[in-house]
Amino acid sequence: MTQLPLAVSLGDPAGIGPEVVGKCWDHRSRFGLSPFVAIGDPRSLAAVWDGPIVTIEDAREVDSAFDVGLPLWPIAAAERDVPGCPSVAGAHCSLDALELAVGLARSGTAAAVVTGPVSKEQLYRIGFAHPGQTEFVAERCGVSPANVVMMLAGPSLRTVPVTTHLPLADVPAALSISLIEARGRAALRGLQRSFGIAEPRLAVAGLNPHAGENGALGREEIELIIPAIEALRAEGWHVTGPHPADTMFHAAARARYDAALCMYHDQALIPLKALHFEDGVNITLGLPIVRTAPDHGTAFDIAGNDRADPRAMAAAMRQAEASVAHRAAGRG
Amino acid sequence: MTQLPLAVSLGDPAGIGPEVVGKCWDHRSRFGLSPFVAIGDPRSLAAVWDGPIVTIEDAREVDSAFDVGLPLWPIAAAERDVPGCPSVAGAHCSLDALELAVGLARSGTAAAVVTGPVSKEQLYRIGFAHPGQTEFVAERCGVSPANVVMMLAGPSLRTVPVTTHLPLADVPAALSISLIEARGRAALRGLQRSFGIAEPRLAVAGLNPHAGENGALGREEIELIIPAIEALRAEGWHVTGPHPADTMFHAAARARYDAALCMYHDQALIPLKALHFEDGVNITLGLPIVRTAPDHGTAFDIAGNDRADPRAMAAAMRQAEASVAHRAAGRG
Repeated sequence: MTQLPLAVSLGDPAGIGPEVVGKCWDHRSRFGLSPFVAIGDPRSLAAVWDGPIVTIEDAREVDSAFDVGLPLWPIAAAERDVPGCPSVAGAHCSLDALELAVGLARSGTAAAVVTGPVSKEQLYRIGFAHPGQTEFVAERCGVSPANVVMMLAGPSLRTVPVTTHLPLADVPAALSISLIEARGRAALRGLQRSFGIAEPRLAVAGLNPHAGENGALGREEIELIIPAIEALRAEGWHVTGPHPADTMFHAAARARYDAALCMYHDQALIPLKALHFEDGVNITLGLPIVRTAPDHGTAFDIAGNDRADPRAMAAAMRQAEASVAHRAAGRG
Repeated sequence: MTQLPLAVSLGDPAGIGPEVVGKCWDHRSRFGLSPFVAIGDPRSLAAVWDGPIVTIEDAREVDSAFDVGLPLWPIAAAERDVPGCPSVAGAHCSLDALELAVGLARSGTAAAVVTGPVSKEQLYRIGFAHPGQTEFVAERCGVSPANVVMMLAGPSLRTVPVTTHLPLADVPAALSISLIEARGRAALRGLQRSFGIAEPRLAVAGLNPHAGENGALGREEIELIIPAIEALRAEGWHVTGPHPADTMFHAAARARYDAALCMYHDQALIPLKALHFEDGVNITLGLPIVRTAPDHGTAFDIAGNDRADPRAMAAAMRQAEASVAHRAAGRG
């Protein structure tokens, strides 16, 4: 059986998505990439990339086309976007590409979805009602966003934030035993299903400095985090913590767990990007399909200058392939 | 003129301080260390380290003694501490050693103070009224703790936290324009005086995810951080930000500034320890004397097992020497 291709949405046509996808095709051997089909506006790709494009509208053509050029499933934008200058037309195009990519994966036509970066600001202007692509994909898959978890992964660290895009002042009140427990369980199941780790180890960060120092520097560890850890342990999971967040991300500490459960956005993203800025991958756990994304944004400021680094996009594609393989093996 | 020695307090006699100081003398050539005098209980050193000790009570003897053995200014503890088992007697000993080290530096007998790790819990039991050694040293130097700033430094990153040991929930209310401005100014002056950087560049982190996204994810950037940055710029300092905290600690970003001003403990310490766990140095800026410390604690759990890593203590000694040299050059 031929392997199904990955469906890769280009993201915002004015961002760096088209460029990094084109560069991934250029370096497909070096990056170790299997066939994929890009989905988006052909003009946005041609504007920033000189390689050969093979237009297709049938995923079965991807395999044979991939050696000839970059297979592209065209989504025409109403207007031609200038790199670096996002528009409402580009937002429609990026949303159509995302919708098609998810549809291909849902229908079993593509192996998984890899999403290029979109402009939330532009999407909100066209009535997009989700916080981000993750929640949109969850809805299209019939999964409540509450049960979907974002994991950030680099070569030596995986982190899962319990809360994400909240003002820091709102984080303590947003935490609860049930939320920490649910995010922890989703992370552990995701490590099994999408990473093939039979007995995953989860390290849970404290919220406060020194993990609260037994209550002297905050009580969330005692009142919320420790009860959540105990609940997960009672289910048989291997869970440690709460750990002081500043001493859990050096190499020796990272070797002791498979993922770190973090209480807020920057606690998860500061160490991940400090260590793996070039090749961090965002993985959505808890979906019926595999979905990954490079852990960077549209970078409108450098779009069209041939300066975008394709390594994170390549890492997202490789992670998607690996997760598909682990899931298939798990169903064995 | 003979170079003055560093005064190095051993810290808690039951912690890893004595061991790492002994190992620093063992590897003084490899670490590039100039003569120093250790201050503490001779028994605590002999219990964990087999090298030669030269007892001295005059700093002028250090230079000649240093080739023969580790010069030690004895502070007898009332009881002999067992490594890993801190006591009230050990706390008194660690405080006496700190007091003498500061006195030697204040009187011009030692070049600078390097402090070994103490147990705050034990110090509080003997009536120690300061949050930590930093505030004690500040008081002994006649400087208000409010004007003293902690900098964490590793080979590729320096960070300065605006707030330190507070529950995370209390951080937003503890921030003010004047506090951010004062900490930023102290960091900039410290970069000039103690690091010899004539035109220092300070990068200021946001408090909220994505630095608040223009107010959508929190207003502290708009109401507090930006006004503080503008006030510092008006004085002619080179200050950038507020930067999203997750994208300011990768290598390319770090190359653009000399220090990062962070809003809370873990924002400063997560990246520092993720990148430089083995050789992070704590530097107190704003004092009339130079004071540094290794960026680790007493580690009672491994004390006496010959497992303690001396690199951070060695880095603290080298930083103290470098800061002394920069200050001398600045006075020109």
